[in-house]
Amino acid sequence: MEVPPPLVLKRSLFVPSKTLMGPGPSNCSQRVLEAMSNPVLGHMHPECLQIMDEVKEGIKYIFQTLNDATMCISGAGHSGMEAALCNLIEENDVVLLGISGMWGHRAGDIARRYGADVRFVEASFGRALTLEEIRFAFDTHKPRVFFVAQGDSSTGILQRHISEIGDLCRQYDCYLVVDVVASLGGTHFLMDEWKVDVAYTGSQKTLGGPAGLTPISFSKRALTHIKQRKTKPKVYYFDVLLIGQYWGCYGTPRIYHHTISSTLLYGLREALAHFCAMGLKNVVQRHLECSQRLQLGIEELGLEMFVQHEPDRLPTVNAVKVPFGIDWRKVADYAMRKYNLEISGGLGPTVEHVFRIGLMGENATLEKVDMVLSILNEAIQSIKLRAIKTERSKI
Amino acid sequence: MEVPPPLVLKRSLFVPSKTLMGPGPSNCSQRVLEAMSNPVLGHMHPECLQIMDEVKEGIKYIFQTLNDATMCISGAGHSGMEAALCNLIEENDVVLLGISGMWGHRAGDIARRYGADVRFVEASFGRALTLEEIRFAFDTHKPRVFFVAQGDSSTGILQRHISEIGDLCRQYDCYLVVDVVASLGGTHFLMDEWKVDVAYTGSQKTLGGPAGLTPISFSKRALTHIKQRKTKPKVYYFDVLLIGQYWGCYGTPRIYHHTISSTLLYGLREALAHFCAMGLKNVVQRHLECSQRLQLGIEELGLEMFVQHEPDRLPTVNAVKVPFGIDWRKVADYAMRKYNLEISGGLGPTVEHVFRIGLMGENATLEKVDMVLSILNEAIQSIKLRAIKTERSKI
Repeated sequence: MEVPPPLVLKRSLFVPSKTLMGPGPSNCSQRVLEAMSNPVLGHMHPECLQIMDEVKEGIKYIFQTLNDATMCISGAGHSGMEAALCNLIEENDVVLLGISGMWGHRAGDIARRYGADVRFVEASFGRALTLEEIRFAFDTHKPRVFFVAQGDSSTGILQRHISEIGDLCRQYDCYLVVDVVASLGGTHFLMDEWKVDVAYTGSQKTLGGPAGLTPISFSKRALTHIKQRKTKPKVYYFDVLLIGQYWGCYGTPRIYHHTISSTLLYGLREALAHFCAMGLKNVVQRHLECSQRLQLGIEELGLEMFVQHEPDRLPTVNAVKVPFGIDWRKVADYAMRKYNLEISGGLGPTVEHVFRIGLMGENATLEKVDMVLSILNEAIQSIKLRAIKTERSKI
Repeated sequence: MEVPPPLVLKRSLFVPSKTLMGPGPSNCSQRVLEAMSNPVLGHMHPECLQIMDEVKEGIKYIFQTLNDATMCISGAGHSGMEAALCNLIEENDVVLLGISGMWGHRAGDIARRYGADVRFVEASFGRALTLEEIRFAFDTHKPRVFFVAQGDSSTGILQRHISEIGDLCRQYDCYLVVDVVASLGGTHFLMDEWKVDVAYTGSQKTLGGPAGLTPISFSKRALTHIKQRKTKPKVYYFDVLLIGQYWGCYGTPRIYHHTISSTLLYGLREALAHFCAMGLKNVVQRHLECSQRLQLGIEELGLEMFVQHEPDRLPTVNAVKVPFGIDWRKVADYAMRKYNLEISGGLGPTVEHVFRIGLMGENATLEKVDMVLSILNEAIQSIKLRAIKTERSKI
């Protein structure tokens, strides 16, 4: 038997240009896109290591940390979650997961596979966790690791009080993992000041970099704990002691761990450079302003935000209730077909119930906010009109 | 405390153009590089899923397989090794690792972390495993999983007889994992005919794609075994039942598993398209011819191949003994400084002992072979001359 070459690969590559205003990826700037067609470099070449060093410094800035163990995992955002939990968890450790959407459950699935004793603390539907709820859960479960997403992209919920949670973790000798995949750059985050032990973010969200490299940082406290593990972390690929050695984090010679994609490094480096040039505070401020304008516009259109309590709203991923009787898919299809604009539906607990509108990086501008509002309205009106016409044609 | 934006990111990105003739990555063609500056697509957009389907068909062709469970892991080549072992191994399974260089040991480290009972069968130094050695080891250890690298890039050794090993595995009810990261495209490989259960390759070697996506395929037999596991695979990120669902392998609806890098997909798609257009057999033939010419040239230069037994030589990564009294680093530095040409040193068991010359993809041409021979010779002569001058100056 011989497998023939596939005919589909004789066609040319087709990539349409879209405006990505779902929960991510967001659009990359021309600078980032162009960087990625630079020639490939070897993973141990000094020029590649130099770019890794620059990326590392950029990550320290956006996380506001001085942690030595700051690097990227070569994988999607999910690999950040894996690396955080894989390195911290030993079998039977109690791991407490804060739930305000889908990501706590996902972290639970991951932690359970590593042999953790998994517990949950769940917020009221459509709300962030309160400090009281978290305190009570700590008291009940005495966790070794606490996981929370600062921004849950499935619900558009922002978890505040990370600083207080950091204090609580120290009090309970617990390690704090904060998922800032969807929130970083859209809201304040101060890794060191808030005593966060592990944080990771998505490169393809507010940073406007390519997906595939996941910035992550481990506190000195977390690193000490990892060094004292009784067993090796379950996954070689996610072993932060080895990856950090390759990234030159520990002042020891660089040792090959895996072949990093120089292409993605170029893109992420340029995204970080742009981000740093704009300044973290300005970026956050811009994302806040865009989200506020969007929320106002949503109200003016007679629509409703999914998250009732305003301070619990994530500025980067805005969940808007789908109006009664409207099929969200038709609205999203309309926007995509007519304007090449991505408006997303829900995920996990919000499936069918919400639109998710991403305001991130290149797409966090007031012009884009006005555009998405206008197209969302046009799409809903058009779907309504079509529904009325269909009804009439039945009479 | 405030962490300031790093000054290094104010500089422009600097990427030199090099000829990469080490063990990989190899150079990407202009077509591949240009593809990667296309706009980003969402990971669930139909155009992205279409490209994934095309990539999948391309992988089936290069592996010569009809396996449904053919996809990419979003990670470096190492993540292919992880995914293969993570999905097959349950705690206390006996895993036998064929050793003819570094990669069997690496697979052993990975397997042990997953709780396997790890055993080794080691070839004589500088040789591939013989069928007798493997048969004896099967008889002794009765393994559940057998791992072997078809091409060990650390030593330049080619493991032949995969087909016979496939038969042996069926006989012992054992699953056969073959690492073809460094060999695929440079030597024959017939996944289905040879009864290989899991194979994975590097995108950045003979394929000439970008690093960061790892083609992998699981046989129906392996998949059935995985579906009957008593416990979930230890790593969500590497769970092939979930990844395969996202890749549309099982005829079920596509479900989001992680955010794939559309950028890398474009590059890999174009690399595969080029590879398929040339034809697998022609590519293999070209790599063989290049390696033969290189071996002849090496002999003519008075140098010696590390692998004595000719049929055990891997055509893609050619290990050449470092002549007595020569510092390999100086030779490699000379080639890089004067010609922007990468010639690599050894790795693992061959550190300090060999040069590794990669003939892969874009760089597997007779012209490049002549070039690397000429530069290697010039570099060695220059280092010798410098050594003589230094000696004389001491007198």
